[in-house]
Amino acid sequence: MTFQKEIIIGPFERGFHIISNQIINELPIMSGIVNVFIKHTSASLTINENADPSVREDFENHFNLMVSEDGNYFKHTLEGPDDMTSHIKSSLLGSSINFPVKNGIPQLGTWQGIYLCEHRNNALKRRLIITVTGD
Amino acid sequence: MTFQKEIIIGPFERGFHIISNQIINELPIMSGIVNVFIKHTSASLTINENADPSVREDFENHFNLMVSEDGNYFKHTLEGPDDMTSHIKSSLLGSSINFPVKNGIPQLGTWQGIYLCEHRNNALKRRLIITVTGD
Amino acid sequence: MTFQKEIIIGPFERGFHIISNQIINELPIMSGIVNVFIKHTSASLTINENADPSVREDFENHFNLMVSEDGNYFKHTLEGPDDMTSHIKSSLLGSSINFPVKNGIPQLGTWQGIYLCEHRNNALKRRLIITVTGD
Repeated sequence: MTFQKEIIIGPFERGFHIISNQIINELPIMSGIVNVFIKHTSASLTINENADPSVREDFENHFNLMVSEDGNYFKHTLEGPDDMTSHIKSSLLGSSINFPVKNGIPQLGTWQGIYLCEHRNNALKRRLIITVTGD
Repeated sequence: MTFQKEIIIGPFERGFHIISNQIINELPIMSGIVNVFIKHTSASLTINENADPSVREDFENHFNLMVSEDGNYFKHTLEGPDDMTSHIKSSLLGSSINFPVKNGIPQLGTWQGIYLCEHRNNALKRRLIITVTGD
Repeated sequence: MTFQKEIIIGPFERGFHIISNQIINELPIMSGIVNVFIKHTSASLTINENADPSVREDFENHFNLMVSEDGNYFKHTLEGPDDMTSHIKSSLLGSSINFPVKNGIPQLGTWQGIYLCEHRNNALKRRLIITVTGD
């Protein structure tokens, strides 16, 4: 059995956003592996702490230092200083997440939420594909 | 066919630990994709060099510099200086690994081992879910 | 249904290389999840911008700064200054990518390409395993 659906969400402000419900509400009654994939190279997906909003602020601040827009060695900056840095942040976090599902219930830990990480200053809506393989 | 099992391992000291056997011993006689998922936001999973213990030490030292506890911009530090840094390290490495399996034999390279990366100073046991989809 | 095939590609120069066609040409007419796995610990896989070669140069330059070979705390340097740094870069980017496929067509975004990230100065050929689960 295979389930596959594209959803369109956002646009989001630059930063880290919890989208758990938008994903979980789409899951079919299956058991297996869920892959959520973002069809973009300047936004990404990760799983992290879902309760304290300051975690998402700290993520944004840390990533802005670790992949600084002041890097004068960047060549790919046609769309602005947040262009190349967004690509790097995207690969550090990843374009997909994978997690187990059991009878349609995602098997996430108590404190785990799904983040959409928007790295651009002025982003449009984002396309995601949810695929579930299993029984 | 779908296989899914939760295991509880540890606790581990802060650092990078090889847990290959604890995962491999659970694999069913299937061919397909294995997803190993950690149900926590301050520990993570990765695949890397399995032979020289100094690799794991170097990982710990490098991650402590790349995500320094001296970062005075962190707000989410209620549980100590290793609180927010653990969340960031966790997303950089990832909450799951995926690898191929053939007739129950993991198709890892000769030098590849499965790491549990414990980012907290005083961690409890960790819950992992192993899921295999395929035939 | 499960598809699984090992391919050998390269050798590649140190840097970031697009290998989309080498992967896509192998995909069977299935719908589900594709896992591409690299059986090495000093090269990695990621998905990023596929059009402008300067993106791949910027990636190489940024990773060389973020994981500098000047780090005097590295112990695992028997094979040279690019030894331990390659392991760290490999875990930051990951040893596998996962993406959706529909009737044999990879569901990547317009600007997304598959990168092989070669972190060693003098690498040999690299072994990859492509696995597809689904229908």
